Amino acid sequence: MDNFVFQNTTKIVFGKNTEQEVGEYTSKYGKKVLLHYGGGSIKKYGTYDKVVNSLEKAGIEYVELGGVKSNPRVDLVREGIKLVEKENVDFILAVGGGSVIDSAKAIAVGRYYDGDVWDLYQGQLKIKQALPLGVVLTIPAAGSESSDASVITNMDGMYKRSIHSDKIRPKFAIMNPELTYTLPDYQTAAGAVDIMAHIMERYFTNTPDVDFTDRLCEGSLKAVISNVPKALKENDNYPARAEIMWASTIAHNGLLGTGREEDWASHQIEHELSGIYDVAHGAGLAVIFPAWMEYVYKHDVERFAQFAVRVWDVDPDFSDLNWTAKEGIRKTKEYFHSIGMPTTLNELDIPGDRLEEMAEKCTENGSVGSFLKLNKTDVLKIYRIAQE
Amino acid sequence: MDNFVFQNTTKIVFGKNTEQEVGEYTSKYGKKVLLHYGGGSIKKYGTYDKVVNSLEKAGIEYVELGGVKSNPRVDLVREGIKLVEKENVDFILAVGGGSVIDSAKAIAVGRYYDGDVWDLYQGQLKIKQALPLGVVLTIPAAGSESSDASVITNMDGMYKRSIHSDKIRPKFAIMNPELTYTLPDYQTAAGAVDIMAHIMERYFTNTPDVDFTDRLCEGSLKAVISNVPKALKENDNYPARAEIMWASTIAHNGLLGTGREEDWASHQIEHELSGIYDVAHGAGLAVIFPAWMEYVYKHDVERFAQFAVRVWDVDPDFSDLNWTAKEGIRKTKEYFHSIGMPTTLNELDIPGDRLEEMAEKCTENGSVGSFLKLNKTDVLKIYRIAQE
Repeated sequence: MDNFVFQNTTKIVFGKNTEQEVGEYTSKYGKKVLLHYGGGSIKKYGTYDKVVNSLEKAGIEYVELGGVKSNPRVDLVREGIKLVEKENVDFILAVGGGSVIDSAKAIAVGRYYDGDVWDLYQGQLKIKQALPLGVVLTIPAAGSESSDASVITNMDGMYKRSIHSDKIRPKFAIMNPELTYTLPDYQTAAGAVDIMAHIMERYFTNTPDVDFTDRLCEGSLKAVISNVPKALKENDNYPARAEIMWASTIAHNGLLGTGREEDWASHQIEHELSGIYDVAHGAGLAVIFPAWMEYVYKHDVERFAQFAVRVWDVDPDFSDLNWTAKEGIRKTKEYFHSIGMPTTLNELDIPGDRLEEMAEKCTENGSVGSFLKLNKTDVLKIYRIAQE
Repeated sequence: MDNFVFQNTTKIVFGKNTEQEVGEYTSKYGKKVLLHYGGGSIKKYGTYDKVVNSLEKAGIEYVELGGVKSNPRVDLVREGIKLVEKENVDFILAVGGGSVIDSAKAIAVGRYYDGDVWDLYQGQLKIKQALPLGVVLTIPAAGSESSDASVITNMDGMYKRSIHSDKIRPKFAIMNPELTYTLPDYQTAAGAVDIMAHIMERYFTNTPDVDFTDRLCEGSLKAVISNVPKALKENDNYPARAEIMWASTIAHNGLLGTGREEDWASHQIEHELSGIYDVAHGAGLAVIFPAWMEYVYKHDVERFAQFAVRVWDVDPDFSDLNWTAKEGIRKTKEYFHSIGMPTTLNELDIPGDRLEEMAEKCTENGSVGSFLKLNKTDVLKIYRIAQE
């Protein structure tokens, strides 16, 4: 186990009707709020009204900025920064999923940065200050509700880049699983893949002696795997929705990666997909992660065998650990399929003509991944495995 | 799953040599520190010198109060309160295990309470203010390094009572597994039982639909179970010590109990043992927990069967879940024995003559436990099961 520092200060407020407490929590941090959200769904399903009522009850002023898209754009972030400056906003409330939260985080740091906010996402600039922010979560997937990360897309060149800072960790995250009942199945499933990917990016590590966090990862994966089909079968299955939602936060709050090197190659390889083709991040991961696994598993076949046995209940063949490992990969892919996710680029209608460009872009700042460091040729091979 | 609020703000600084950073972390909160510790072991093994050097390097003044005993006494707490008032201490640094940390927490709240600090432990008084505190952990067991709880013993009547408040959660916990190499085997094992008990107090619940936290509990137990024998066989086995130490914190940082009713009967039943006979808390739990299990398992035999199968790898007999459940209890007891713990009151040299008095005291404020609510008669029966 490696040395580590771990702290996650976000207050999680979890359960039925909790979105009605948002005014109370917000009032601890701000008086004038930017209410940031995506498309029309929070209005259509009543979440918007509940949030606004709660803010008004708590005597909190607010201005609004909707329109966040998946793979959130830096253009809207720039608009948000102007708005919070002009309106003297002192707190940002993100109502939505990871895209809305990441956009809110970008506005929060852009508020106190003199140059263009995209500089922060491009370079190694230190984040010095940020507006405080809170979350009402409506999509369990990204884990952004308690993470220190934000991923933003710049349409000018189709770049998708991230920042990390404790300054952008939300003060609170209000999580009512009922708000996820109305998610389309595709989005529920894509979210589930994203959650699983956050766990697996940490699980596949070169750090020895990480039993405890291995066990936490395996247990988290099992809980997601068993509950997603229930939520898909019955959209308003509260217990299943609750398990998925709570697991989504823990998958990405830092705990599961404590003391171990993390990988993140699959996320970076996928970012080029959703950057260019604007596919759902989770759907892209469902395609890329199994391809990555096939490409790298021989680097540590014992770890992949452990994954197969402990997560997928594969009956191990100790005389053929390669087979055991591959069974785990096969079951992962099979599971993604079973919940309605694509597992090939073909299924995503992504043609082969820009794979080399994507591999080039993905590795333009050097190799990706830690489990195995991958260069452009490796990444291209993974895209090719993912094709069909 | 029940609604819940979860937040744990303690910064964990984990790994080799981290105790040498204590001055730096302390300097963020205070200029004059009460250095609080137990007996001679931190001086004997060099931890004291490293801590004091680090404080001095950071320009931090300190006064000292050693002498904390296991089952920490309110008398020493009172002395500490006088000292921090007189010396204008603005931060408490606990160097030790749960007893030292709990004693530090008591001093922290007593500093701002006008009456006698024991009032706070006896009643339902709200904790309004506390000195900030930090920890250098030397014994993985109590989980007090990031918990909101403190347990103190009053020799006047041999009462052991607790408080809970976010105000006493440590600001940071420095955790170097190397500092645990010198623990006597008995203390390592007793600590392990305490860790397991913290998990099991949460695991045995009446709340339905808690798959995710069940899985986290089971994985945590498995990690502890497999690593304790390694640490006992080879005292300086860093990986094993590290797994146990990190699991000890997560076992009691609140996460594993999110969304579920917790039990805590075994802890309360044990408190009367260590209150009167001054036995190690973990050793007392090794005796009480299996007896409690035997007494209550029929209340939810399926949950006990799940525990047996998932934690102890019992091959389930679905035609006889009682047998399956009992196998899990048997294996728990067998494991405690295998790591050198007592599992009967006889082995602890506790005679039968005061069992009724203990049962009376244990239930004087009403029934104990949630999984099954236990009255005096129940508790007495559990003590009798525990006798031999």
